[in-house]
Amino acid sequence: MGDLAEVVQPKKAFGWAARDTSGVLSPFTFSRRATGEKDVSFKVLYCGICHSDLHMLKNEWGSSTYPLVPGHEIVGVVTEIGSKVENFRVGDKVGVGCMVGSCHSYDNCADNLENYCPKMILTYGAKDLDGTITYGGYSDIMVANEHFIVRIPDNLPLDVGAPLLCAGITVYSPLKYYGLDKPGMHVGVVGLGGLGHVAVKFAKAMGVKVTVISTSPNKKKEAIEHLGADSFLVSRNQDELQAATSTMDGIIDTVSAPHALPPLIALLKTNGKLVLVGAPEKPLELPAFPLLMGRKTVAGSGIGGMKETQEMINFAAKHNIAADVEVIPIDYVNTAIERLLKSDVRYRFVIDIGNTLKSTS
Amino acid sequence: MGDLAEVVQPKKAFGWAARDTSGVLSPFTFSRRATGEKDVSFKVLYCGICHSDLHMLKNEWGSSTYPLVPGHEIVGVVTEIGSKVENFRVGDKVGVGCMVGSCHSYDNCADNLENYCPKMILTYGAKDLDGTITYGGYSDIMVANEHFIVRIPDNLPLDVGAPLLCAGITVYSPLKYYGLDKPGMHVGVVGLGGLGHVAVKFAKAMGVKVTVISTSPNKKKEAIEHLGADSFLVSRNQDELQAATSTMDGIIDTVSAPHALPPLIALLKTNGKLVLVGAPEKPLELPAFPLLMGRKTVAGSGIGGMKETQEMINFAAKHNIAADVEVIPIDYVNTAIERLLKSDVRYRFVIDIGNTLKSTS
Repeated sequence: MGDLAEVVQPKKAFGWAARDTSGVLSPFTFSRRATGEKDVSFKVLYCGICHSDLHMLKNEWGSSTYPLVPGHEIVGVVTEIGSKVENFRVGDKVGVGCMVGSCHSYDNCADNLENYCPKMILTYGAKDLDGTITYGGYSDIMVANEHFIVRIPDNLPLDVGAPLLCAGITVYSPLKYYGLDKPGMHVGVVGLGGLGHVAVKFAKAMGVKVTVISTSPNKKKEAIEHLGADSFLVSRNQDELQAATSTMDGIIDTVSAPHALPPLIALLKTNGKLVLVGAPEKPLELPAFPLLMGRKTVAGSGIGGMKETQEMINFAAKHNIAADVEVIPIDYVNTAIERLLKSDVRYRFVIDIGNTLKSTS
Repeated sequence: MGDLAEVVQPKKAFGWAARDTSGVLSPFTFSRRATGEKDVSFKVLYCGICHSDLHMLKNEWGSSTYPLVPGHEIVGVVTEIGSKVENFRVGDKVGVGCMVGSCHSYDNCADNLENYCPKMILTYGAKDLDGTITYGGYSDIMVANEHFIVRIPDNLPLDVGAPLLCAGITVYSPLKYYGLDKPGMHVGVVGLGGLGHVAVKFAKAMGVKVTVISTSPNKKKEAIEHLGADSFLVSRNQDELQAATSTMDGIIDTVSAPHALPPLIALLKTNGKLVLVGAPEKPLELPAFPLLMGRKTVAGSGIGGMKETQEMINFAAKHNIAADVEVIPIDYVNTAIERLLKSDVRYRFVIDIGNTLKSTS
């Protein structure tokens, strides 16, 4: 599909791209479409580095095309709007998350679930409506249909707001959909990375009691004192697991490495829900008996629809929820990706595109 | 625990019991407690043979005690009531299902979910409140607290009503709880045995479109013409599976043999629910990605609470729902169990206790 990706379009664009499965990023000059009548164009200021970028860079999910410009936690300021754009004006602070298109016709789209539309177009590395390949936010400008543009409230700083467009909605949506947002409930959060740390913040803001479940005992202090979790459970400590048996209404499981589900299922009360938002590559082992014995659920959730993404950003702004980020210059991106592979970041890298991405041409 | 089981109690009782893990049943004289102030005693007329009886007879779940009198689909006529019984009178038609006790105090019991109470007492092979071992319905009389007694409506014949007390509630409860009871919905039923055939009947009575999913093409005619299913899907036929992709709101999976979940998950629409009511002994393989991509759920459900069991029986009576049964004499029971192991029954064996169980003493 690379041929169509390199069609020259009206808007000159510049970013960093991987050229092959090595995944190494380097400067890349390309082009984007002119601002269509329903399009919003914006100058990119910050872009978060999501764990899924790592998989895409190296084609580990088998769907990557090169050159690949990653990035789907993109924020900036509107520079141009199409003639039929209704909700945005030049100068607005906006963002784009994981998707830039969907069918707008069948059930999912009609229910504001563009994220589950079979024709959903990913923000980068996907075939767009015009046949070109989409490029993500490790770049200077973005053009997207206004339906997929999110307004960033004034009191939410752009750098710490960017990761909410993927990490934030990924955990907010299941907390809402699976009814784990009721004050007084007890919710577990498995894994304290980019997703997990914002899951703790959203759940706390909803009035929920939060227990962080992690393999790393040394994250306890951070989880409780800094992120505000109510308690901390070391997932390899049988005594701690035993003491917490049947105490949780739900669990948001952010781990994408292989891991055992039965100890998590045991933590759930009757009717409890274990929601997977990380996607281990190999199948997990699921014993049926513990599900039957407590009417328990193992479910999945993938990002969220556009209406809910806006609702999530507004909720975050209202409750002062932001990602904890390490802001980096673009020329640090390859090092950042190596560090992310080792989980060596608290908790999200965000690229300062506005101040550090300069065309070499 | 066998010592306590054989304490002599006031009521002489007679039934058929297995004495060891061979599982072979033979006549057995035992005793039951006197009718307590909250107890209902009844003469057993019919008792269904549930697939779980097979596992219990041979101690395949590791919890069996011998002598073991199975049977938890028990119906009959009240012969005696305790002084504080409020809801039943001598002569009433009644039944007992899978349980005869629970804690009555903590959350599950307070929510009418005695079936998920950690102290729930099974109808047979379990330790009762007085320390004796419970005996099931392959016997001439039953004594149970009225809380666990179900009233059988007059228009529901006892022989075809008996299996509803386990098979019926096992499928009715998840159809209701998981919201798969809305007219116009499309629900799959996997497996056409004791549970599956009544699942089809309940779902149809709820106004739901039903597709039976089975490994046996030769069950198609029966499923559609006799049970009223709308369509039939051979689970090993890739073309049929493909054609039905993303069409179902939910699936009731009654299969307790090992089987693949991914083809079933693929049949679900966005937000679709795969509910396991059979319990394969070994863990099933669960890929996370398909759950995330459509916010799908794999869940479990185990029988139902007493309030819902009565509701189910009333619904069945109103809609003329009954199990399809083969009524057998007690001395055929060992042969019936061999046939059930080979799924050679349409669809439930029911023992005619009233007319065929005679004490040899």
